Amino acid sequence: MTRRAFVHRISTKAPDDVSGLRSRIALGEIDPRGIVAILGKTEGNGNVNDFSRGFASASLKIELRRHLSQADADAICLVMSGGTEGAMAPHVVVFEVRDVADAPEASALAVGRSRTADLPFEQLGRIAQIELVADAVRAAMADAGIAEADQVHFVQIKCPLLTLERIARAESEGKQTATRDTLKSMALSRAASSLGVATALGEVDPAAIRDEAIGRDWSLFSSRASASAGVELTDHEIVVLGHAPGWSGPLRIAHCVMQDAIDVEPVRAALALQPGTHLVALLGKAESGTSGKLRGYRHTMLDDSDISPTRHARGFVAGALAGVVGHAEIYVSGGAEHQGPDGGGPVALITTEQAIKHGVAA
Amino acid sequence: MTRRAFVHRISTKAPDDVSGLRSRIALGEIDPRGIVAILGKTEGNGNVNDFSRGFASASLKIELRRHLSQADADAICLVMSGGTEGAMAPHVVVFEVRDVADAPEASALAVGRSRTADLPFEQLGRIAQIELVADAVRAAMADAGIAEADQVHFVQIKCPLLTLERIARAESEGKQTATRDTLKSMALSRAASSLGVATALGEVDPAAIRDEAIGRDWSLFSSRASASAGVELTDHEIVVLGHAPGWSGPLRIAHCVMQDAIDVEPVRAALALQPGTHLVALLGKAESGTSGKLRGYRHTMLDDSDISPTRHARGFVAGALAGVVGHAEIYVSGGAEHQGPDGGGPVALITTEQAIKHGVAA
Amino acid sequence: MTRRAFVHRISTKAPDDVSGLRSRIALGEIDPRGIVAILGKTEGNGNVNDFSRGFASASLKIELRRHLSQADADAICLVMSGGTEGAMAPHVVVFEVRDVADAPEASALAVGRSRTADLPFEQLGRIAQIELVADAVRAAMADAGIAEADQVHFVQIKCPLLTLERIARAESEGKQTATRDTLKSMALSRAASSLGVATALGEVDPAAIRDEAIGRDWSLFSSRASASAGVELTDHEIVVLGHAPGWSGPLRIAHCVMQDAIDVEPVRAALALQPGTHLVALLGKAESGTSGKLRGYRHTMLDDSDISPTRHARGFVAGALAGVVGHAEIYVSGGAEHQGPDGGGPVALITTEQAIKHGVAA
Amino acid sequence: MTRRAFVHRISTKAPDDVSGLRSRIALGEIDPRGIVAILGKTEGNGNVNDFSRGFASASLKIELRRHLSQADADAICLVMSGGTEGAMAPHVVVFEVRDVADAPEASALAVGRSRTADLPFEQLGRIAQIELVADAVRAAMADAGIAEADQVHFVQIKCPLLTLERIARAESEGKQTATRDTLKSMALSRAASSLGVATALGEVDPAAIRDEAIGRDWSLFSSRASASAGVELTDHEIVVLGHAPGWSGPLRIAHCVMQDAIDVEPVRAALALQPGTHLVALLGKAESGTSGKLRGYRHTMLDDSDISPTRHARGFVAGALAGVVGHAEIYVSGGAEHQGPDGGGPVALITTEQAIKHGVAA
Repeated sequence: MTRRAFVHRISTKAPDDVSGLRSRIALGEIDPRGIVAILGKTEGNGNVNDFSRGFASASLKIELRRHLSQADADAICLVMSGGTEGAMAPHVVVFEVRDVADAPEASALAVGRSRTADLPFEQLGRIAQIELVADAVRAAMADAGIAEADQVHFVQIKCPLLTLERIARAESEGKQTATRDTLKSMALSRAASSLGVATALGEVDPAAIRDEAIGRDWSLFSSRASASAGVELTDHEIVVLGHAPGWSGPLRIAHCVMQDAIDVEPVRAALALQPGTHLVALLGKAESGTSGKLRGYRHTMLDDSDISPTRHARGFVAGALAGVVGHAEIYVSGGAEHQGPDGGGPVALITTEQAIKHGVAA
Repeated sequence: MTRRAFVHRISTKAPDDVSGLRSRIALGEIDPRGIVAILGKTEGNGNVNDFSRGFASASLKIELRRHLSQADADAICLVMSGGTEGAMAPHVVVFEVRDVADAPEASALAVGRSRTADLPFEQLGRIAQIELVADAVRAAMADAGIAEADQVHFVQIKCPLLTLERIARAESEGKQTATRDTLKSMALSRAASSLGVATALGEVDPAAIRDEAIGRDWSLFSSRASASAGVELTDHEIVVLGHAPGWSGPLRIAHCVMQDAIDVEPVRAALALQPGTHLVALLGKAESGTSGKLRGYRHTMLDDSDISPTRHARGFVAGALAGVVGHAEIYVSGGAEHQGPDGGGPVALITTEQAIKHGVAA
Repeated sequence: MTRRAFVHRISTKAPDDVSGLRSRIALGEIDPRGIVAILGKTEGNGNVNDFSRGFASASLKIELRRHLSQADADAICLVMSGGTEGAMAPHVVVFEVRDVADAPEASALAVGRSRTADLPFEQLGRIAQIELVADAVRAAMADAGIAEADQVHFVQIKCPLLTLERIARAESEGKQTATRDTLKSMALSRAASSLGVATALGEVDPAAIRDEAIGRDWSLFSSRASASAGVELTDHEIVVLGHAPGWSGPLRIAHCVMQDAIDVEPVRAALALQPGTHLVALLGKAESGTSGKLRGYRHTMLDDSDISPTRHARGFVAGALAGVVGHAEIYVSGGAEHQGPDGGGPVALITTEQAIKHGVAA
Repeated sequence: MTRRAFVHRISTKAPDDVSGLRSRIALGEIDPRGIVAILGKTEGNGNVNDFSRGFASASLKIELRRHLSQADADAICLVMSGGTEGAMAPHVVVFEVRDVADAPEASALAVGRSRTADLPFEQLGRIAQIELVADAVRAAMADAGIAEADQVHFVQIKCPLLTLERIARAESEGKQTATRDTLKSMALSRAASSLGVATALGEVDPAAIRDEAIGRDWSLFSSRASASAGVELTDHEIVVLGHAPGWSGPLRIAHCVMQDAIDVEPVRAALALQPGTHLVALLGKAESGTSGKLRGYRHTMLDDSDISPTRHARGFVAGALAGVVGHAEIYVSGGAEHQGPDGGGPVALITTEQAIKHGVAA
């Protein structure tokens, strides 16, 4: 008896298009009881007033409740990332786990998950949040059966943010939040969460981090973290992807780090390492960086008041990555604080040794 | 005695930044008397209300008049292309020709130019414009000493557009223009101009083109045309780049055609053909295409009411190309009617056999 | 026994915020069985990729189904208009009708509704659509008990649009649609629907309209039509507001026509006509017009490639109207083909003779 | 012998359109030697990458140098404000002063100007800047012959900003600038400059201002300041408009304060005070405010990642004002720190007792 991970990449026609998921379930290609997480790219602006994310999440939740109890449906980690700039294709990636009779593989894709306790709002963006997340990453590793940090290749975190109401509640208890700017709280929460991953994976020494470094000292980063802040939770949802004993099936995962927006050779090299395999999903981060330059040449992403830097960066990096992998149905998300170096970002590649049938790694 | 082409790629700090050009002239690296054309990427939106182009052109013209007679300064072909989406770097590319005592090379970069007569406004976007341009392309080839069409690698055309006043003038003479929509006239003028290149280079049989195909039948295209419409002229300015006898120096040019937005392998192959050379300038076109898909996957460029398709396409294609050439100080321009296939576009690569010093191919 | 109309204006915190509607129902202030229509302003871009409208409609439909049978919930006419530019406040306006024991008023607000048969797709944007809508407007007037056209003050129409699939279906039957451009089909459908209102109300002589005038001859218009195209229907939903015998309650309605974007004196005059009343809801249309000028001065709405003309027009007209009525929780919608004169638009004012309690005209 | 102010409002067809100014000069309607200042609305985005301002300033400067010595031309205060959202009309307002033989009027428009010394960069956004500006406002009042603060109705200030280079220079001298964020330095410079006006005019007690209040305590404001930051100067240019003895001609000025974005009644009242007069120019400020609400209703200006709050606010406020004054060729500028209350702004109205001929107050 082993566990086997399935990764289903499904194109979507609109934020509320769940027809692909529904038909996969109807065909028996997806067993809804095994769904652990769904990551998706939706076609809004990826910024504050992006309603495509909420619309997609609500639509997915309604569909999942048709197949599962409400509690089970709501336990599934939904991470919708807005912004399909350039030719990036809107899609979802469904992570499913089944118990199977197959023999274990030496290194098969393993999926683990965990949740933290609620984060006291005054701890958001501070070392306490780093520690809370680091513990949960270890728990998710244990859930997946991953013993060694170097067997972890991607950690997706969904983290909370501050609202005016939450700030008020903290202040009514005499507590001071790290910021009173709600937009900035999203960045700080992603930042602390990513440093939580970095410390859990041994990439950064926790003793070296001070509150002031969070969201500021970009020399500290994880090469495997991907964080997303959402208003709908007050704890953290964590999904760990890696390799572990006790798992079977043809799926594999690799990761690399782009040092800047066009540093695609590591991606090409990672793909070339596994000749004969097919790419099932690419999960990556993009950002404009703080220098205003790329390889010494000035860019205008930070100065464009018509298009936000995150939109520029996603479209440009998606172009660079699509040029390597041969299509643009890839998950490139913005907001990469401490997720890869300044201006760069981590990329995870899920591949299969066999041909993909109907987008399902069979 | 031979002619020698120089290509100077100069970073700009703002649309009106001519300090780089000025200092190159002051240092003697550029002789203003030999400047034939300046192509530039400026940091506006690349659409109707992009004032960065006019500001750049006006600033360059003022600077050139400091060094040349007004007539000579105004004869220089200025093509400013707006839109540096993603990490594309604002810059200009100065084409200069000098008579030198060097021995001719087997295939050195050759530059030729020509202008057409004024285009009667009712001919814009029609076969008469194609024929007018085709003749001028042949004249520019003769100016460069290029006898064979396959020695031409890039043809830049600046073509006129219709204004409400021009339409009224044509109608007052009892003539009917091809369109009464001024924005559409830009596309039609680029379309007919590009088909003019295609027929001059033997890529399309002129007998097969009917008025209705212009701006509609995307199976007809040139793999070497780059057209830009401007309100400031009523004729056409043509610059031909290729190889010809009687030219010297280390500069070479190659071209290829991207079949779609991420078809970068031809670019990689063209660069690999000339090991040891350095890329001096990349000149290419980008567009979103009409299918709404890339390699079978839906994209959202055509449906985004916040960012125009041309801005999406430029940023994304620039990312794909920068991933190959290693930086983003490249000239990627939008509006590619009949310039490469639907959704794709031509790319020209100017390289030098020797190391580049101060960005000048010496 | 009379009918009584209630109009509830409810602020919303987000596109999917139905908490206001829910609490009104819970408090007994709204009886869901009497809801006829809900008009709303949502905070997207109001253009093609505005997901705030669909998200709001889906959220309202789910909420209504909690209180009504699915058939009854789905029969309620939902018109979500995207775009709250400037300080316009996102909100919904709920129209409810109850049978009451009150004595009839001389002129109380009356609400009528109707639906047409499915529109054959080749008739969209043509005279047949005008006739279909005109009949349905008469039916909705009859439903409200309005006998005279001059007692009609506002007609809201939700009309269909063409999709690529619908065009293909028509063509497979050997029919030709009025356009193959799906975006243009929205404008044509609004145009023909508005001319349907105009003919039903005697504002335009149907004999004078030819197919070519639809979406082109702006001298033909209704002063009381408001049309919105949606992909989710293939027929038309019509809601008529006016005064009629047999209705009771303190609500009244008036309308006027703005000749251009700042022609607010008619609105001021209409409000001044009824001293002591309170404004319950303002329903209006805004557009940039085709001249590129306002009162002789050039504007830049039509040339701005960063912000669409509809967004400019809504924000600007909302400012002009808010300056008159004293707040910006008003319904100003774009896309005003044949709805008021070129550059102007109709405005309807729903007022109450008594003080408004909890936003409900009690 | 008196001085007489002339105010010429001239429509522009593009940022670089100086044809109106040129023809007024050619016709003798404007004497270039008397031009003191030119305020203009240009059609860019009004934000960081708005090149329409620089293009307009450069074009005006070139034109002015055709008529004046370079020193005299460059001494003219040019304030180009980007952003003509909604139907706002691009235009310039030229302030000219002539010595005439007319008898003085009791209260004729008076114009005064001054410049400060260079601002040490570490003083930007601090009390020292307030004091520097306050002294210069007094000097400009003296230049105009205005003795009493209540005779001042509008103070336009052009103030410097920090660049990375300026910050570095200050730091190399061991000084600390108020901010290291160049965008924020623009807001701080406008804020301190406006408080300089407020103290000079006795609106705010200088003893009550602390560094921390600058750009934060919105209860402190001037009802007559209008500040604009520009990279091209390191000192401040100040133009004061008011009434003073020794001036002649039919021009008058009044001002009022809008408490919020739709508080137009003070403007209407100010216009009504002078029946029979014509409005020559309206100069006002607009901003979205910090509350996220207008008259208790939520707006979405602060949360829109597609359109900046300043663009929303200008278009909306311009609509409200245009509804009152009857056209939209008005100067409504954004960035109103300490210029009117939070969410509101000052408005100045220049009127003439006589009919305007050719837009010139003769």
